[in-house]
Amino acid sequence: MTRRAVLGEALGSLLLLATVVGSGIMAERFAGGNVAIALLGNTLATGAMLFVLVTMLAPVSGAHLNPAVTLVMRLRGQIRTDAAIAYGAAQLGGGIIGVWLAHLMFGLPVLQLSDTGRSGPGQWLGEAVATFGLILTILGTRPGCVPASVALYIAAAYWFTSSTSFANPAITIARSLSDSFAGIAPACVPAFVAAQLAGALAAHGLSGLVFPDTTKEPA
Amino acid sequence: MTRRAVLGEALGSLLLLATVVGSGIMAERFAGGNVAIALLGNTLATGAMLFVLVTMLAPVSGAHLNPAVTLVMRLRGQIRTDAAIAYGAAQLGGGIIGVWLAHLMFGLPVLQLSDTGRSGPGQWLGEAVATFGLILTILGTRPGCVPASVALYIAAAYWFTSSTSFANPAITIARSLSDSFAGIAPACVPAFVAAQLAGALAAHGLSGLVFPDTTKEPA
Amino acid sequence: MTRRAVLGEALGSLLLLATVVGSGIMAERFAGGNVAIALLGNTLATGAMLFVLVTMLAPVSGAHLNPAVTLVMRLRGQIRTDAAIAYGAAQLGGGIIGVWLAHLMFGLPVLQLSDTGRSGPGQWLGEAVATFGLILTILGTRPGCVPASVALYIAAAYWFTSSTSFANPAITIARSLSDSFAGIAPACVPAFVAAQLAGALAAHGLSGLVFPDTTKEPA
Amino acid sequence: MTRRAVLGEALGSLLLLATVVGSGIMAERFAGGNVAIALLGNTLATGAMLFVLVTMLAPVSGAHLNPAVTLVMRLRGQIRTDAAIAYGAAQLGGGIIGVWLAHLMFGLPVLQLSDTGRSGPGQWLGEAVATFGLILTILGTRPGCVPASVALYIAAAYWFTSSTSFANPAITIARSLSDSFAGIAPACVPAFVAAQLAGALAAHGLSGLVFPDTTKEPA
Repeated sequence: MTRRAVLGEALGSLLLLATVVGSGIMAERFAGGNVAIALLGNTLATGAMLFVLVTMLAPVSGAHLNPAVTLVMRLRGQIRTDAAIAYGAAQLGGGIIGVWLAHLMFGLPVLQLSDTGRSGPGQWLGEAVATFGLILTILGTRPGCVPASVALYIAAAYWFTSSTSFANPAITIARSLSDSFAGIAPACVPAFVAAQLAGALAAHGLSGLVFPDTTKEPA
Repeated sequence: MTRRAVLGEALGSLLLLATVVGSGIMAERFAGGNVAIALLGNTLATGAMLFVLVTMLAPVSGAHLNPAVTLVMRLRGQIRTDAAIAYGAAQLGGGIIGVWLAHLMFGLPVLQLSDTGRSGPGQWLGEAVATFGLILTILGTRPGCVPASVALYIAAAYWFTSSTSFANPAITIARSLSDSFAGIAPACVPAFVAAQLAGALAAHGLSGLVFPDTTKEPA
Repeated sequence: MTRRAVLGEALGSLLLLATVVGSGIMAERFAGGNVAIALLGNTLATGAMLFVLVTMLAPVSGAHLNPAVTLVMRLRGQIRTDAAIAYGAAQLGGGIIGVWLAHLMFGLPVLQLSDTGRSGPGQWLGEAVATFGLILTILGTRPGCVPASVALYIAAAYWFTSSTSFANPAITIARSLSDSFAGIAPACVPAFVAAQLAGALAAHGLSGLVFPDTTKEPA
Repeated sequence: MTRRAVLGEALGSLLLLATVVGSGIMAERFAGGNVAIALLGNTLATGAMLFVLVTMLAPVSGAHLNPAVTLVMRLRGQIRTDAAIAYGAAQLGGGIIGVWLAHLMFGLPVLQLSDTGRSGPGQWLGEAVATFGLILTILGTRPGCVPASVALYIAAAYWFTSSTSFANPAITIARSLSDSFAGIAPACVPAFVAAQLAGALAAHGLSGLVFPDTTKEPA
């Protein structure tokens, strides 16, 4: 079971990153310099793929596709430590291969580093809020609606957070390897990841105050 | 139970206003002056977040997120007066914090007052129609479809009403505290709220003529 | 029961036409002359409202909202002749009031006649195809999916038919009373309606060859 | 049963190609030269129609609408060889008629050959990835979600693959007969089809490693 699950996390992360980075390249190439139009295409593709992947992989691996989700599930006792580590490695490895695949599809150099600075208190707050809302959505939504809610939450967060919502440490690291629309300079990654983890932990802590059945020790 | 519900209303209103105001700032910043493109991004984010919040909070608080909804539910005997007052306070307080959070994320001054005039009989009629349709949708839709229907109704109303559909007194007041795409000058708020309440009461009165089971004293 | 149903058809047609015409005015006003952007807004609003209305009114009236649908349902023995006539009158009357309401919301003269010519064999074929596909969708889709399928079918047909898919005789007549984005010159209405009815009858006839259970006398 | 199924595949392919080609013509005509805006319209129409057709035709024919899907279903023993050949002929014949219907609706010459070169390793990889993901989605998604997942997968793939995701040999051949937005020069067709089949077979082979119940001989 675990081997299937880890492969599922890797394959899902690969397709997710190929979508995020590939649609960013396509959108920027064709949007004639209008960033809002590019972001519409990028949002549409990312949200659509998230619905597909979470629907397909939830029965296989829980469809975490995100180390922040895996961490919270570990804290809630829903995954063992060794499986959580394997999940994280699969998410990161799959994601990086997905970025490279996007580069290959669009005829770009495979190995790149992003030059796009994303930094400052506003964007860090954006990442914390984005990840807080994502974890809250996952913890508070009944399972049958999780694929739609996660996809629509991220679609909204691409627009309402100042950072366009990375909300995922593996995605953040993998996107530092693409000097395209979706890229983030490597030096900006640690602060983004720290903000994401802070947001995730806040949602984990708060969820017990709002949702009766999702924690084992209700407040 | 009530404490969880009130917290749910506050948290949902916070995320809703952060989305409405934040996505408006993002959309305007990147749309290159094309208001229709900005409105597409604003609509997408708002509708998506409404689906997420109503799905998540319906079991917690009924997911009113709107004093006009709470008022109608009070008139229909589905919520007590003290709870309704607490709901209204939570909606307004959460909404205002959501506006401030959007400002913080985008590096803008937290405290603002909108300078955008929104007024005149056409827009007041727009608000009455927008709220009429929203309440009718909530009263006439079977529970399982309410999240999708509310989200899609508001997405449509952003485009078909001349006021871009505030349809919510708490949202209207909170948006007066943002001098951005989604703002409304404070002096324009009272007429908008009056029109919203008129539309809500009209839908409450009419619903018994159309939907057999939603009123206790059918016409 | 019939009185509720007729009122439902009138109210639904009112909201549908207010959406089609209102979102067309909004979209054209803000799209900076880019017709595709205007059509995106018009499509989004129309499809979203169709989902809302069909979900809400299906248990009340069957949510025909379209004389071509009512005609086919009459031919299939699912509605009596007197009810079908009342439905048609409610659809047309409600639709016209909806157009006038859109004009009032946007501060335009209430009484207008469209000056937009829509004519020629290509557009007539477009209307026949649009209505053929709509009726086929209604007859061939299991009830729980009809709201989503009708909404998405019309969203697609706004783009793939050369006439932008009126597909509804009451909508066509009502839209002749608006000299805006969604208008159609009165002289062009009869040919559009004829093409719509031809498409509807073709779908009715063909459906028995494709769907086993939807006709009483299978081919 | 088989006759209904083959007719269903032909009718569905006809409507699908009319949508892909028709919405491409409409989008390009009105997008003012902004390819990203045109692609948004094309994506919206295609994804919406796929949901409608797969929902409607799944009980009739399985809603393959794609020779690559039919091939994989043949390899998995879910369709007989003679039915698979009839499916393929219906998909191609229906698709070609759909292209011609789009031309007729838009007043263009019926018989055309595309002049749009689509070639090179990047685009071939794009087609392999696009078809791989499509087949994986079909094999790994529970039946009730297949219409939404297929529609959203293709919507995403229009943006994240460098080839804008044909992912279907019948669609590829039919689109070579239209010198419009969606066209592909006939000389480019064989390599696209070969890449699609390679991607489909890879997904068939890999699916057993990820999804426990979808192959008869699990890995």
